[in-house]
Amino acid sequence: MPLSPDQQAEIDAQRAETRPTRRAVAEGMEARLYRAEPVLDHGFVRAIDYMGDDAAIVQAARVSYGRGTKAVQNDAGLIRYLMRHWHSTPFEMCELKLHVKLPVFVARQWIRHRTANVNEYSARYSILDREFYVPDPAHLSAQSEVNAQGRGAVLEGEEAERVLSWLREDAGRAYDHYEAMLSTDGQQGLARELARMNLPASVYTQWYWKVDLHNLLHFLRLRADAHAQWEIRAYADAICRMVADWVPLTWAAFEDYRLGGVQLSAAGVTCLKRMLAGERVTQETSGMSKGEWREFEGVWGG
Amino acid sequence: MPLSPDQQAEIDAQRAETRPTRRAVAEGMEARLYRAEPVLDHGFVRAIDYMGDDAAIVQAARVSYGRGTKAVQNDAGLIRYLMRHWHSTPFEMCELKLHVKLPVFVARQWIRHRTANVNEYSARYSILDREFYVPDPAHLSAQSEVNAQGRGAVLEGEEAERVLSWLREDAGRAYDHYEAMLSTDGQQGLARELARMNLPASVYTQWYWKVDLHNLLHFLRLRADAHAQWEIRAYADAICRMVADWVPLTWAAFEDYRLGGVQLSAAGVTCLKRMLAGERVTQETSGMSKGEWREFEGVWGG
Amino acid sequence: MPLSPDQQAEIDAQRAETRPTRRAVAEGMEARLYRAEPVLDHGFVRAIDYMGDDAAIVQAARVSYGRGTKAVQNDAGLIRYLMRHWHSTPFEMCELKLHVKLPVFVARQWIRHRTANVNEYSARYSILDREFYVPDPAHLSAQSEVNAQGRGAVLEGEEAERVLSWLREDAGRAYDHYEAMLSTDGQQGLARELARMNLPASVYTQWYWKVDLHNLLHFLRLRADAHAQWEIRAYADAICRMVADWVPLTWAAFEDYRLGGVQLSAAGVTCLKRMLAGERVTQETSGMSKGEWREFEGVWGG
Amino acid sequence: MPLSPDQQAEIDAQRAETRPTRRAVAEGMEARLYRAEPVLDHGFVRAIDYMGDDAAIVQAARVSYGRGTKAVQNDAGLIRYLMRHWHSTPFEMCELKLHVKLPVFVARQWIRHRTANVNEYSARYSILDREFYVPDPAHLSAQSEVNAQGRGAVLEGEEAERVLSWLREDAGRAYDHYEAMLSTDGQQGLARELARMNLPASVYTQWYWKVDLHNLLHFLRLRADAHAQWEIRAYADAICRMVADWVPLTWAAFEDYRLGGVQLSAAGVTCLKRMLAGERVTQETSGMSKGEWREFEGVWGG
Repeated sequence: MPLSPDQQAEIDAQRAETRPTRRAVAEGMEARLYRAEPVLDHGFVRAIDYMGDDAAIVQAARVSYGRGTKAVQNDAGLIRYLMRHWHSTPFEMCELKLHVKLPVFVARQWIRHRTANVNEYSARYSILDREFYVPDPAHLSAQSEVNAQGRGAVLEGEEAERVLSWLREDAGRAYDHYEAMLSTDGQQGLARELARMNLPASVYTQWYWKVDLHNLLHFLRLRADAHAQWEIRAYADAICRMVADWVPLTWAAFEDYRLGGVQLSAAGVTCLKRMLAGERVTQETSGMSKGEWREFEGVWGG
Repeated sequence: MPLSPDQQAEIDAQRAETRPTRRAVAEGMEARLYRAEPVLDHGFVRAIDYMGDDAAIVQAARVSYGRGTKAVQNDAGLIRYLMRHWHSTPFEMCELKLHVKLPVFVARQWIRHRTANVNEYSARYSILDREFYVPDPAHLSAQSEVNAQGRGAVLEGEEAERVLSWLREDAGRAYDHYEAMLSTDGQQGLARELARMNLPASVYTQWYWKVDLHNLLHFLRLRADAHAQWEIRAYADAICRMVADWVPLTWAAFEDYRLGGVQLSAAGVTCLKRMLAGERVTQETSGMSKGEWREFEGVWGG
Repeated sequence: MPLSPDQQAEIDAQRAETRPTRRAVAEGMEARLYRAEPVLDHGFVRAIDYMGDDAAIVQAARVSYGRGTKAVQNDAGLIRYLMRHWHSTPFEMCELKLHVKLPVFVARQWIRHRTANVNEYSARYSILDREFYVPDPAHLSAQSEVNAQGRGAVLEGEEAERVLSWLREDAGRAYDHYEAMLSTDGQQGLARELARMNLPASVYTQWYWKVDLHNLLHFLRLRADAHAQWEIRAYADAICRMVADWVPLTWAAFEDYRLGGVQLSAAGVTCLKRMLAGERVTQETSGMSKGEWREFEGVWGG
Repeated sequence: MPLSPDQQAEIDAQRAETRPTRRAVAEGMEARLYRAEPVLDHGFVRAIDYMGDDAAIVQAARVSYGRGTKAVQNDAGLIRYLMRHWHSTPFEMCELKLHVKLPVFVARQWIRHRTANVNEYSARYSILDREFYVPDPAHLSAQSEVNAQGRGAVLEGEEAERVLSWLREDAGRAYDHYEAMLSTDGQQGLARELARMNLPASVYTQWYWKVDLHNLLHFLRLRADAHAQWEIRAYADAICRMVADWVPLTWAAFEDYRLGGVQLSAAGVTCLKRMLAGERVTQETSGMSKGEWREFEGVWGG
């Protein structure tokens, strides 16, 4: 359970209160606002604020004086056109602010996306909580043998138990010593900015993360993907559900053109044209490397 | 008059409508929302949307679960601390979206600030209106003799009249030919993307411009400054008034630490310390160049 | 002819001089360095400096201590893998600095790409030259009837002559008045920052533009494209030739995966699979809009 | 000793080789290229590549055809002017690429500076080395009592020994288990992307980091500062020495206007003017908070 009763009470109090605004309001996001969606064993993601909606994208694309078209159908068509032709600036006109609690090793992947604003809980200034990510046995996977950055089968039996107990015990001991080093009871007490270095990458941190919709979709394309590490994908999937409620027309276009889309190389286009013409193409005759052909075949068959 | 009756009606309709939201609401900005503030002879700036308020900055700085402190005084102190110590990320947690109508030569200065999102009216796709900036005689200034990028005295008499009539006539003729080139009446009609090249830099364009508060303050520090060209400063000053109503605590800190503040070099610090000790310092004994000393003396006296 | 004899002499002097360096050296770019490639009637693009080469991309991807692999073949394979899987950071490790002379209306399109460093010639500080873009008759096109932002057939006969003479005369007159307003001969002389507003968007400006290879390729994908305005495409094409000489392995991968590649939507994938299975698909049965189907058919046939 | 003999040999081989280039060459940086400057117990920073020099800044500021002025004195004056008036774009025209080996907790502070390109060693793909930061006893400090994010006195006696042994032992045990979990000897072997979560924030990582000079100076202003954590400051100080050799005129201006400079608030300006007029000002009469006054007094005396 990631939230303390006090924290939950603060969130409930914020959700209970509404005030009138002249701004664009997205009902699908209002329903989600402030609520923590649990992710992993102690993490969450929750929307803190947002700016804009599908109509705001249309409005910006047209640099219009009012609220865009009356017809939802026209908005959908324009949004699909913008997405198909890689027009990014209208999507930048929407913004989302999230509060995320996440293990440090996930935070380190996440922060590589630089086109966002971040305010992280400071372990120089404050003391971190005793909370560590320990994978569910169903996600405790072996190293993949074919993909250097992937996972293989789930660990079994004693090996799984040994791994889980090491993860738990090493983290627990590290935290015991973290607290003991910080203590000023009968000693000077180590600086917080130094003591934190004893904590493992499984420890939870939290931050406020604010991003425009274009860059958020780029993040989701990479992180809600089968190649992403499962743990960050769990966060990305939760954000996908928020985005679908917030800007449903944009989400539908994104699913069609990005998540469900396929990028073909020039060589791939040539192969497909030959196949459409009835030719049988193999890796040897494709002009592709083995790796490329395996990916191509995965989509189109041999 | 920058707005047509239709445009004004669209704005009034948007201002008349409110809806409930759970988000942070800044009353000072709600009162301004959508309303066009006139700038120059045909331009305006109007707020289209915003995210956050002073409390949201405090909330982000603390990575908190609720709405920050109850006491405004504490918020003010923290915001002053953050501003004084150049903490930029909490201010990035607020966002403003503007609709701006402005001459092209102002737009060209403005766009140099890259950390913002922009959607400009497309003169490839659409036809520009017959609207050009012609300076008020009070701002029709001669080239400065001391500052290569500044203005001197106001032009007088026949010279002023001659300049104003050239600006008006050349723009008018350019627009006449723009229309004549575009016309498909008895001819093919030139492509819009080519015809626009005949229009002068005084022609008005418009855009949606979205920026976070930290980068907006940086923009205002440079453009609401005595060294900025008067025309862009007119826009910056109008935005300053919006920001003061939107995030009053942040605005007060910005005025104290940035707009009213002074940056001293190491040499300047040394000089001031000598002056505090009772010594009389001149340019010759200051270790500064003539230009630096002139700026130093302008603030501190000789 | 875009360069004065003095400018050409300065360029020749720089090209004549070499000095030893320990840095990565790309011979293909050294051969081009400083030389101005003419673009349009008075413009050019020339490489001023560069950082890195194909091997530097490999080296960064591996965070290696030395110069990457010995085998060019391995480098090519890794670069293709990075490009195929949208790994952007290794390509960011190369940098190019260009000096570009270009019409203002092209500069206004170019500057929308914000992830670059720009230093533009200041018309507040200096006086612009009497140089304007006037299209070659072969590129003087009518407005497209099917594409709101495109060009149709080339203008003919009297219409073409009329357009060209207006473009020339209006620009010439605007420049005459620009000079007359600036003159301090018997008058005060208008400030340069104001006088420039009389000049049309066809006037040439120049800037230094520095960008990393990843963002440069993104720029080229959008601007060396059939949908880009012909004038900016002329610059993009010239830069493409430089990049091909500078980082040939990266260029080959870019041509295969981006310039020659095709992005398919989920709907497009489904249609292609049906076609591969022998079905005849039409717009009505495709699930695509007319616009999407037209683009799909353009690549794959009906 | 941070480098293996093989790594040192690769570096020596690269240093031994020079090739001719037409580009700007900075002798002070050539002398340093590739060489690892040791930082902390196992870390280093080394320059891998650079673009530009002091003259390139001048050249960009002038958008010139050749190599800027002949006179170093003129270059120095212009660079000082640009720095004093916060002109950032000319400094963006130089670029530096570093290879850095650093503890993870330092990397997490460093990466907050987003305007740079980063390629980090992947612990999903590769196995991290058994190297952990353990502070020198001289830098093992207690928590500051006045500054929530600062350090106080150095730890002494048994407390210091206890802390050091915990830091060493916990890291060692965590690494033992990391290796044991990865092992495929008689077991499946945990995925690398999971096993790494057991390692503490003191473990060393490495990356390529590329940044333009303007953003580098901003980084150095914040991180080569007394308020920065000592460990990241050790890296910043090493980079400062590189920059001083690379662009000596820019470095001198930076020292004068930024590192040695002082930012005064409007209230601070008023107080100083009163003091210059002979008045005695105290915190009570200053209009500043206690915190601000303490900082003010620290520079100017009471």
